[in-house]
Amino acid sequence: VTRVVAGIDIGGSKVLAVVLDERRDVVASVRLPTSIGAEGVVRSGAEALRQLAQQIDVRAEDFTVVGVGVPGLVEVGSGHVSHAVNLGVGGALALGPELSRRLGVPVVVENDVKAAALGAAQLLGLEDADLAFLSIGTGLAAGLVTGGQVRRGARGAAGEIGHVSIDPEGPVCRCGQRGCLETFASGTAIAAAWPALNGEPPAASLFAAAAAGDARAVRVRDTFADHVASAVRLLVLTCDVEVVVLGGGVTNVGSALLDCVVLALQRQAATSPFLATLNLPGRVTVVPVGSAMGAVGAALSGLAAFTSGDTARRRSDDGDRPA
Amino acid sequence: VTRVVAGIDIGGSKVLAVVLDERRDVVASVRLPTSIGAEGVVRSGAEALRQLAQQIDVRAEDFTVVGVGVPGLVEVGSGHVSHAVNLGVGGALALGPELSRRLGVPVVVENDVKAAALGAAQLLGLEDADLAFLSIGTGLAAGLVTGGQVRRGARGAAGEIGHVSIDPEGPVCRCGQRGCLETFASGTAIAAAWPALNGEPPAASLFAAAAAGDARAVRVRDTFADHVASAVRLLVLTCDVEVVVLGGGVTNVGSALLDCVVLALQRQAATSPFLATLNLPGRVTVVPVGSAMGAVGAALSGLAAFTSGDTARRRSDDGDRPA
Repeated sequence: VTRVVAGIDIGGSKVLAVVLDERRDVVASVRLPTSIGAEGVVRSGAEALRQLAQQIDVRAEDFTVVGVGVPGLVEVGSGHVSHAVNLGVGGALALGPELSRRLGVPVVVENDVKAAALGAAQLLGLEDADLAFLSIGTGLAAGLVTGGQVRRGARGAAGEIGHVSIDPEGPVCRCGQRGCLETFASGTAIAAAWPALNGEPPAASLFAAAAAGDARAVRVRDTFADHVASAVRLLVLTCDVEVVVLGGGVTNVGSALLDCVVLALQRQAATSPFLATLNLPGRVTVVPVGSAMGAVGAALSGLAAFTSGDTARRRSDDGDRPA
Repeated sequence: VTRVVAGIDIGGSKVLAVVLDERRDVVASVRLPTSIGAEGVVRSGAEALRQLAQQIDVRAEDFTVVGVGVPGLVEVGSGHVSHAVNLGVGGALALGPELSRRLGVPVVVENDVKAAALGAAQLLGLEDADLAFLSIGTGLAAGLVTGGQVRRGARGAAGEIGHVSIDPEGPVCRCGQRGCLETFASGTAIAAAWPALNGEPPAASLFAAAAAGDARAVRVRDTFADHVASAVRLLVLTCDVEVVVLGGGVTNVGSALLDCVVLALQRQAATSPFLATLNLPGRVTVVPVGSAMGAVGAALSGLAAFTSGDTARRRSDDGDRPA
């Protein structure tokens, strides 16, 4: 019997689902817009998985296991998700059990950044390295992979570096603290400092203007890069991961982001012999634009949990269905 | 044959050596003043271990393994130490090979804070918890224990949170950066804000004055506690360890330190529902005053390396002896 492992990354605007073969290569993929809200999210996920099954000529119930990556707080054991604000899900959603019921397959749910960290390790051939995947999107968070496994920590908060305060005089963060790293190093921070004029993503507009020599754009871009560099430094000074992989929506601007962050790390190292010994510029990299590491990582999360016998199946006591 | 495991913690002022029995309890201990400088450090360590052996009626060469904890950058594989400024050792010191040669036993060297983290886990009965040991002494650093093992990271920098900047306008740090956590949350920071008048340790003087109602002392103490709380928060937001154990010289002030840090964590949680979900006040504790976790942890480091066959023995190619 062949294993058919599917992974699905459910984001605020799109759902991306993939099938991995035995060698963990992507052999099929489906992309759909996300319907927002609890029922919409479950429906979008189920629909993407049905189309995916069709594409490879199997039924959805033939998937050995489905791994799901979603933003928000995930209780991996039960497959429940909460605080998935980007998906229009305020309360708790029994995403794992509900998808499992509709499709008739074991479903494993993981936080999207943690799943993407596994995917990045695989796609970059870094399965044996300790790495941090730094997701720079609407918010800022990291996924840690050590010894080939995602580190969750005592309460799933491992990698929540977006809410480390780096400036007591900084802006108030949505979390209630002041000067959180996320208020400086995120897509939201770019949008605030460089509002898009023509519907273009603010990060793309900023990097284009800076490349064209606009002095203010250069300043905003370099300040942003300094703060991404601070996040890289923070990850090394706490966990000392071997590699920090930049990812998330802002990395769609392409190689210029990595160039700027490396320069910022070099500037910072020049002021501190201690930092210089850490060789941070040599330890940061970026995911290729358009890579499917979220969905691939979700599939790998599912596979890992399935192999260890730890999948969330349908529960008869589940009273927490989406409305 | 009985295993006799010794551990030795070499600090800037004193050397503490212990012997553990099979149940990992301390059955003998020796305390000596440290002689500073490369040769002094080796001599102090060897002398403490000889006295320790005498105390339990064995010869030094009967120790199964000796674990050594020292400040500075440790290359665990070779037993070499560098940057041990507190010990008057500026360059590299082949501490492991040299002690091994003089005593005729396998020697394992570990950074003192990382060793103490292992010792704290054992002494507090937290061997199964992921924990951080936060050493608040002259400097500020953490030792991480996950899955019962010390996390070193790619370059031994895991836990070096003292050099995370939390204020771009803060004081210049000895590392060359500005506003490092260490400049706010360390014995050195207390001494700067509250110089000792009568030879008393500044932390003891500060906490006594604050307890007696001195308004300025209360302010300095609470600001200090706020920054220790920031270090606790940082450790949870990056690694999400289950428990943070406060240790280091400043904890000699007794239970008042933990009380103040818990209050600071409660104040911070009151401003942020996100922080409140992490239950930081319930996850911080302190080592008992006078506990020997540095030496115990060094012994455990030695035992762990010995069991895995990874001890630093004498090397014929060692050209890096102390002068």
